[in-house]
Amino acid sequence: MSAPIEHTSPVPSPAVLEPFGGGGGRAVMLGHVHPDADVLGTLLALGLALEGRGWNVAYGGPHPAPDLLAFLPGVDRYRRLDTLGGPLDVVVLTDCPNPLRTEGLIDQARRTAKVIVNIDHHPDNRRYGDVNWIDTSAAATGEMVYELLRALGVPLTPAIATNLFTAIHTDTGSFRYSNVTSRTFTIAAALVGAGARPEVVSESLYERRAPDALRWLGEALTRVEVSEDGRLGWLALPAGVVPERIVESEELVNYPRSVASVRVACLLRERDGTVKVSLRGKGDVDVQKIAAQFGGGGHVNAAGCTVPGPLPEATRQVLAAVRRAVDRSPSS
Amino acid sequence: MSAPIEHTSPVPSPAVLEPFGGGGGRAVMLGHVHPDADVLGTLLALGLALEGRGWNVAYGGPHPAPDLLAFLPGVDRYRRLDTLGGPLDVVVLTDCPNPLRTEGLIDQARRTAKVIVNIDHHPDNRRYGDVNWIDTSAAATGEMVYELLRALGVPLTPAIATNLFTAIHTDTGSFRYSNVTSRTFTIAAALVGAGARPEVVSESLYERRAPDALRWLGEALTRVEVSEDGRLGWLALPAGVVPERIVESEELVNYPRSVASVRVACLLRERDGTVKVSLRGKGDVDVQKIAAQFGGGGHVNAAGCTVPGPLPEATRQVLAAVRRAVDRSPSS
Repeated sequence: MSAPIEHTSPVPSPAVLEPFGGGGGRAVMLGHVHPDADVLGTLLALGLALEGRGWNVAYGGPHPAPDLLAFLPGVDRYRRLDTLGGPLDVVVLTDCPNPLRTEGLIDQARRTAKVIVNIDHHPDNRRYGDVNWIDTSAAATGEMVYELLRALGVPLTPAIATNLFTAIHTDTGSFRYSNVTSRTFTIAAALVGAGARPEVVSESLYERRAPDALRWLGEALTRVEVSEDGRLGWLALPAGVVPERIVESEELVNYPRSVASVRVACLLRERDGTVKVSLRGKGDVDVQKIAAQFGGGGHVNAAGCTVPGPLPEATRQVLAAVRRAVDRSPSS
Repeated sequence: MSAPIEHTSPVPSPAVLEPFGGGGGRAVMLGHVHPDADVLGTLLALGLALEGRGWNVAYGGPHPAPDLLAFLPGVDRYRRLDTLGGPLDVVVLTDCPNPLRTEGLIDQARRTAKVIVNIDHHPDNRRYGDVNWIDTSAAATGEMVYELLRALGVPLTPAIATNLFTAIHTDTGSFRYSNVTSRTFTIAAALVGAGARPEVVSESLYERRAPDALRWLGEALTRVEVSEDGRLGWLALPAGVVPERIVESEELVNYPRSVASVRVACLLRERDGTVKVSLRGKGDVDVQKIAAQFGGGGHVNAAGCTVPGPLPEATRQVLAAVRRAVDRSPSS
């Protein structure tokens, strides 16, 4: 293709639809590192829809799908990839603001694919595709792919609906975050109408705890700290205190977030000498800017970064940055 | 009125609308003991709508509104009532299956009101009104009152929309339960379009923890037990172990429910010599029937009862009943 195309409104333009027209072809749905439900749900929904139109579709990325998302219809097709194969007609990335997160697979795509399509709702998206559809008003890329399938005239199967519903459900914190709009609910209604089952998705996501998980969760919660003024809440977990499988499956950062006075919540997890940091805000502080100071990224209310250990020094540095941001916020 | 009227479909019939017609009158929106968000949100929404049409409306019941729901628009109007006053044109009860739960206020209503309107979605509703609108397909009475206001042609203000959105949000566990339908989401879309703000409601409901609440939650979670076969999960809390304000504000029964293998979750709270029991199922066991054995009630997946103490004996009895029900279930 010639000059990259950029489109930013909720309804896809003809240029966004164009790569998916015609009588089919070979496509790869390419995920980024540690793919979550918004990535996998949208890649699977779009891929299954294209298969229904005669396309030959492969699904994968640098990491396999996590066990937690084994219930997504078609996710058994998603693989860890070393190579994309080719030649390809289209490579699609969803919910991936930075091509570095493909660990080099994007470079293969540039060599072997006619078109790279970048579908995302992150404001800091790098516009690395030939077609870049970046709708920052979407609560989840699940909303965007829903609009794409509608524009393509693809019928919603229960498998497609379940993938999109899960994508939207997780990226909105179960329809609770400030990114939720009337459109989010209208799309959810259509997806349930097409066969997505909210209770099955919720049970698959949230009611999968192991019998011993609550004891470990209790152990973690006793370590939550709240600053004297109540505005910072954090949980710093040294390696080995709580099993990795518990930390991976519990959204621990949501607990300090749930304290009424807390404006920014922070989870710091030590592992292999580095500290993975998750930040959550409540609208008055832009946590993406805090994460960016440490080379990370995300959204206004949810961001993350990785900083060098040891944990006490990492905690000190991150909390100092959070404190500066909170003290500068309008509600201070 | 003459013979009681019964109506069971989602859209209100002329007989259901009739008490709210005409040029206004005096109405009481009557709540039951320990009113929750589905009760208060619907009473306030309907009352505010009637006030907009020239009615004189009072709001109250045997207990005041809980602090947690102080954010509901108009809830400062809701009072603990000893007497209804009168004469009244209409008394409305919502989400109240059993008139005994009004602690005698229903008898006053029978003496002083022209019409008692009973709006509910519980299957075990006693049909105690002059007009009984019982739609068991509704996820929340919030859906029913939405349909009522639509049929009455009442414009949705942000205050009305917030009350109805909160009612639906809480009775569906944040759009996660099996009662959620496409209609639930369509109504949520309309309410957000009318000014309800999902993030404000969610923050008001779920992010109000005190700084010390997570430590107490951790303490409670270390006491969760799971049966050897994994199918029963329970938490038995002796009086005084965790402060009453924590137990009141945390939906503790949802934690044992979150264990994948658990089919029925049970919370037992000792207080003043009796034990309050909350039961939650996952579709394969009817917990309402278990609660009914102890004089309680509720829904298929959520029910409760109160049994005599002491706690160990109460726990033994309730778990024995749960075990019998689980062993009889189709998935056994």
